[in-house]
Amino acid sequence: MKTNAILLTDGLLHLVYGKTAHGLISGMSRFPIQAVIDPIHVGKDAGVVTDGKMRHIPIFASVEEALSALNPRPTHCIIGVATHGGRLIPSLLESLKVAIQQNLTIVNGLHELVSENPTLYPLLKQYGVEVIDIRKPKHSSQLHMWEGKIQNVVTPRIAVLGTDCAIGKRTTCQKLTQACNQQGIKTEMIYTGQTGWLQGFQYGFIFDSTLNDFVSGELEHAIVSCVNEANPELILIEGQSALRNPSGPCGSEFILSGGAKNVILQHTPGRQYFNHGNKVKYPLPSLVDEIALIKAYGAEVLAITLNTGSLNNETWQAAKQRIHLETGLPVVCPREEGVADLIPIIRGVL
Amino acid sequence: MKTNAILLTDGLLHLVYGKTAHGLISGMSRFPIQAVIDPIHVGKDAGVVTDGKMRHIPIFASVEEALSALNPRPTHCIIGVATHGGRLIPSLLESLKVAIQQNLTIVNGLHELVSENPTLYPLLKQYGVEVIDIRKPKHSSQLHMWEGKIQNVVTPRIAVLGTDCAIGKRTTCQKLTQACNQQGIKTEMIYTGQTGWLQGFQYGFIFDSTLNDFVSGELEHAIVSCVNEANPELILIEGQSALRNPSGPCGSEFILSGGAKNVILQHTPGRQYFNHGNKVKYPLPSLVDEIALIKAYGAEVLAITLNTGSLNNETWQAAKQRIHLETGLPVVCPREEGVADLIPIIRGVL
Repeated sequence: MKTNAILLTDGLLHLVYGKTAHGLISGMSRFPIQAVIDPIHVGKDAGVVTDGKMRHIPIFASVEEALSALNPRPTHCIIGVATHGGRLIPSLLESLKVAIQQNLTIVNGLHELVSENPTLYPLLKQYGVEVIDIRKPKHSSQLHMWEGKIQNVVTPRIAVLGTDCAIGKRTTCQKLTQACNQQGIKTEMIYTGQTGWLQGFQYGFIFDSTLNDFVSGELEHAIVSCVNEANPELILIEGQSALRNPSGPCGSEFILSGGAKNVILQHTPGRQYFNHGNKVKYPLPSLVDEIALIKAYGAEVLAITLNTGSLNNETWQAAKQRIHLETGLPVVCPREEGVADLIPIIRGVL
Repeated sequence: MKTNAILLTDGLLHLVYGKTAHGLISGMSRFPIQAVIDPIHVGKDAGVVTDGKMRHIPIFASVEEALSALNPRPTHCIIGVATHGGRLIPSLLESLKVAIQQNLTIVNGLHELVSENPTLYPLLKQYGVEVIDIRKPKHSSQLHMWEGKIQNVVTPRIAVLGTDCAIGKRTTCQKLTQACNQQGIKTEMIYTGQTGWLQGFQYGFIFDSTLNDFVSGELEHAIVSCVNEANPELILIEGQSALRNPSGPCGSEFILSGGAKNVILQHTPGRQYFNHGNKVKYPLPSLVDEIALIKAYGAEVLAITLNTGSLNNETWQAAKQRIHLETGLPVVCPREEGVADLIPIIRGVL
C-alpha cells in the first residue's frame, strides 16, 4: 500500500524545533509528506514556510481538517517537532488522539514513547492502531560493542560535525550525499538521528537514545554493514551536537570510533551562544579553536559550511569572507550556493 | 538484617577484568565481602591476591563450599567481574544457579540482566529470590536532561580522568576522597560506574548504561543533589574510559557538563596500547598531548597519578621522574606512596 503522511508541527514549523519537519518537507521522506498540521501557518505552503520554496504541501489547522480535505487519505501521522526533554506535550496529545481515532499509524521520534503514554495507550488498543516509536531504546542484547573492525575499513569517511546543535549538520550531510552521487561518487550517509531514519537512509542508528556503552559499537556496526552491503566509494557521517556543547558534548566518537579522517564543519556566524534556550549562556567556541580540537583528535577539517540563519545577503557574504581569512579554509553556504564547490575538495581525499 | 556477600570472580580475580572485585575487597562495600568464589585462587586470601594485603577474606572453589564453611551465612551474591560485552557467561550462570537455589540475593553489574536471563528467571521465581541488576537501564522518564543548573554551583569539582580505561581512576578517586576527608576537607565523590554504587557512594549514576542524551543531565543532577544535600567543600568526579579511547571516548562531559575546572590524570607507564584485548592495537596518546586536549576543553591538569602495574621499584621510580620532567606536573603513585602529596595541591584550588 502506498504510504502518505501528515506531519504535526504544533506551531513550531518556522523554528529550529521544527528541524525534523524541515528535513522531511525539503527532501527525502520514508513516508511522503502530504500535508502539515500547524495552527499558526494555516493556508500557507509548508515548503514556503520552511525555506521559501513552493512544494505543494498544504498546511491545515487540525488533523480533522486535513483528513476531510485530503485525497488520497493519508496513512501515517508523524510528529515533526522536538519538544523540551522530548516530551509529549498536551497540544500534541490532542492531535494524536484524533489521528489514532482516525486509524493513522503514529510515527514518533520523541524520547517519550507514544506506546507507553497513559492517555494514548488505551486508544491505540481500542482502535488497533500501530505505533513506530523511533527512539524506543534498543535492549543491550540488540546492540553492538565496538570491536575494532573499523581498522580494516578502507572506504574514506568524512564526518559532518558542527559547532553547535540545531545548526544544519544533517541537511548539509544530506546535500553533500546527493551532490557526490550526482557527480558520480558513490556515497552513503550514515544517519545518527531520528530524522535521518525518517528520511529513509539505510545505515545508521539513533545516537541519543542508545545506551552510552554501545554508541561506538553501533557506529562501527553501521559503517561496516554499509561497506559490506552497499560498497560505496565514500561514507559521510552525520554528526550530533558539538564537541564543546555542555548539554551533551559529542563528536570525538565519529573520528575515533568511526575512523573519520576528515571533517566538514558546519557553523552559523549569527549565533553567539550554544542553543540551550534563554536561561543558560555558554559562548560558542571560535572556529579556529574548534578546528584545532578536531585536529587533536586526529582529523582534518576540509571546509566550513555556513548556516546563514536570518542574515541578509551582504552580511552572510561578509561573514563567509571573514571566516575564510580566519581559518584559511574553503567556506561554502549550502542553502545559498549549493555544495558543488565542495566536490573537488572531497575528491582530493578519495 | 546484616548483609554479607560472597563475590564471584570466576578465575579473573588477579586480572583487570576483576577490577570491580578489587574495589570491593580493598575498601568500601555496600554489602561487606565475606568470601570470594574463584576456582584458580582457592585457599588464598582475596586481599593478598588483589594487592598483597591480608584482609581475611577467604577464597573458595564454589558457592556450595563457601556456604558450608561460612558463619554467619551470607545474604548476597555479587558478580565481581567484567566479561566481554557484559554477558553472563556459562561459568557464571552455574554459580548463580546455586546461589539462587541457596536463596542469596543476586547483585549484578553486567549489561546482561540476571532478571531477564532465560535460565535464571524461572529459578528466581521458583525460589522467590531478589535480584539487583545495577546496570538495568533507567527509563527516559526517570532520567534528567541537562538544564545548565551547574552554572550556579560554586563547589569546586575535580575530575579524575585517565589516559585509558581499566587504569585505576576509581581507586585513585576513592583514595583522594578518603584522604581529603581525613585532612578536614569535606569531600564527596560522584560515582559514574557500577562499582562506585556497589561501594556505597551516595551520589552518581551508571555512565555506560544511561541513554546517551541523558548522560550530561544525570551528571548535573548528581552534582546538584550532592551540593544541596551534603554541602561538601569539594566534589571529586570519577571519570570513565578516556578522551581518546576509540572503543568509547569519554571525558569532556565531566569538564563541560559537570563544570570540573581541574583534573587529576591517571596514567600507566607500562601500557603502550589502549586496553582492547589483543586484536586491536591503538597506541595510547602521549601525556603531553592528553594534557593539552584537557586544556582545550577548559580544564587544567593538577597532577598525574600513576598506576605502576607490574613495574618494579626502580622502573616505576624512573617513570615517575621522567613523567614529571616531561609534563612539569607533580606525579604521585597512589598504591606505593599514598595520595597525601596531592592534598596541598587540592587545597590550592579550594
